[in-house]
Amino acid sequence: MATQVIVLNGGSSAGKSGIARCLQAVLPDPWLALGVDTLIETMPVSLQASDGGLDIAPDGGVSVGPRFRELEAAWTEGVAAMARAGARVIIDEVFLGGAAGQQRWQKALDGLDVLWVAVRCESAVAAGRELARGDRVPGMAASQAETVHRDVTYDLEVDTTHTESLTCARTIAEHVV
Amino acid sequence: MATQVIVLNGGSSAGKSGIARCLQAVLPDPWLALGVDTLIETMPVSLQASDGGLDIAPDGGVSVGPRFRELEAAWTEGVAAMARAGARVIIDEVFLGGAAGQQRWQKALDGLDVLWVAVRCESAVAAGRELARGDRVPGMAASQAETVHRDVTYDLEVDTTHTESLTCARTIAEHVV
Amino acid sequence: MATQVIVLNGGSSAGKSGIARCLQAVLPDPWLALGVDTLIETMPVSLQASDGGLDIAPDGGVSVGPRFRELEAAWTEGVAAMARAGARVIIDEVFLGGAAGQQRWQKALDGLDVLWVAVRCESAVAAGRELARGDRVPGMAASQAETVHRDVTYDLEVDTTHTESLTCARTIAEHVV
Amino acid sequence: MATQVIVLNGGSSAGKSGIARCLQAVLPDPWLALGVDTLIETMPVSLQASDGGLDIAPDGGVSVGPRFRELEAAWTEGVAAMARAGARVIIDEVFLGGAAGQQRWQKALDGLDVLWVAVRCESAVAAGRELARGDRVPGMAASQAETVHRDVTYDLEVDTTHTESLTCARTIAEHVV
Repeated sequence: MATQVIVLNGGSSAGKSGIARCLQAVLPDPWLALGVDTLIETMPVSLQASDGGLDIAPDGGVSVGPRFRELEAAWTEGVAAMARAGARVIIDEVFLGGAAGQQRWQKALDGLDVLWVAVRCESAVAAGRELARGDRVPGMAASQAETVHRDVTYDLEVDTTHTESLTCARTIAEHVV
Repeated sequence: MATQVIVLNGGSSAGKSGIARCLQAVLPDPWLALGVDTLIETMPVSLQASDGGLDIAPDGGVSVGPRFRELEAAWTEGVAAMARAGARVIIDEVFLGGAAGQQRWQKALDGLDVLWVAVRCESAVAAGRELARGDRVPGMAASQAETVHRDVTYDLEVDTTHTESLTCARTIAEHVV
Repeated sequence: MATQVIVLNGGSSAGKSGIARCLQAVLPDPWLALGVDTLIETMPVSLQASDGGLDIAPDGGVSVGPRFRELEAAWTEGVAAMARAGARVIIDEVFLGGAAGQQRWQKALDGLDVLWVAVRCESAVAAGRELARGDRVPGMAASQAETVHRDVTYDLEVDTTHTESLTCARTIAEHVV
Repeated sequence: MATQVIVLNGGSSAGKSGIARCLQAVLPDPWLALGVDTLIETMPVSLQASDGGLDIAPDGGVSVGPRFRELEAAWTEGVAAMARAGARVIIDEVFLGGAAGQQRWQKALDGLDVLWVAVRCESAVAAGRELARGDRVPGMAASQAETVHRDVTYDLEVDTTHTESLTCARTIAEHVV
């Protein structure tokens, strides 16, 4: 069966969106690429800084409230429906709770052919890239680098610490059938 | 029945996304806001400038190819699924073909309680705002101002020519039940 | 003598940058447009959220520390030097302290032919546009709408409350010699 | 004498702006960071796509017309004046013509203490990063990787091919006196 969904899970500044864009360029068919950043942009501004929504602490720690979870659940169903309707979809995600995040997507994507990919990056390197980007609260990269992978099961792992996004994308593309 | 979806249809630079953000601020419940710009951002970069995807002529004329239509169809199904899964959704759209664009969404949103809203703006005013934004190909606003409303049926019409986004949003909010 | 510098002063969300882009489009010669937002982007990220730099309170109040003032003073000299070297320059500014802000620029621009323009907008309207933008701390527009004009002297005033950016730009352009 | 200006010269997608942001974070004093991208943003939109201004060919080749050169000359004077007025300045540049680009800056920065830094990156790696960014015309990185360094004289060279931006920034910072 042809791969219908590619899930890229990794911490902030691990390089997921760069890999997603490279995948869109190297895969022969057109793929949609969306993820948690797309979801956040579609939410009301007020939910991006409240305890009912998304809360980013001064040290970069991220917590998520019940109103965020409700919208996220419907969003997840919708993205799965895009894949069922025939779109090939790359999902760029941060499983804040590790395995619990994966379970949410597994349930929604049930019956679809999914390639689960870990995007790893050494904490210190991701923190340096976070500094170079200049648009993220410092500390997010380091606090997420390990925790997002806790008890998550993958088909494939790539590591951007010493490997370019394009090379990682080519490795992933070889597993897309 | 409670309103589940608000569709804002209007030409480029008519003020749809400003109204969408104001609606998110004035409506008591959290609403997701997404639209054709979100879809375009999730597509491969190559589809944003090819005859199989999106093509913007030097005069601002926009044409859409078969690969764009395929991804759009699946996207439309997915957005409808978000609403069916319980998210309140504002859709910010440009019905390039007028009635044909509405029919695509009517089919996908079948059974949902939808508020159809025209966002009008006089062509010359929209063209001036396009110039002030500085990030659009000049000519899009003028070429779309009338055509996107051709044979489209609405519950409500707002006009940003002489009315602020926030005021338009409040008018729309009164029709949300 | 030909106008060498246009200074647009107004509160946040009054419409200065839209007018600046329209001026660049309607004026026959090429003009550079830069302002306080350009300066902020060139500063270290750390100075954008500290008491030595820029501090934006939760209510939208903006205060500026000594390290910001030092860099700003040198920046102001540099922008004046661009005009002296022959570039036509539009400066998009927020005189937080009213007259004191103007004096800083008057000193730097001494000897140049400057057109001083007030960009006014009713507080409630600017606050609505701030909401529609969705990328500013709510409250900035209202807190600055009046105070930035205190004791400032102008050659010309435009008001975006009921007038489009392009129309304001054309009015200003008539005063450029 | 204390270093007053750091010039980073390198091709598109070589990593200059990431190094500039890291330099701003690791250097003890506040530095302004600006460069050719800042200049382009301040120009009229029309000059970004005309033979009198900036022209980017479909293959990523960049050419620059006389109206661009005029504004650039005044801009260069202004940036030098910022440094003379006491601001520490990082300049993020692309010397399209190699040595000729350096000569323009040498003339403007005469008498200032400048650290000239090459930011190198292997052409294929830069091209991959250009793809991962998704916001540049493919081909710019490859076409500029070598040519921008032709006959340019440096105090220091860094190479981002196998070295992170933060590490490059720390190396440069050791040469700032």
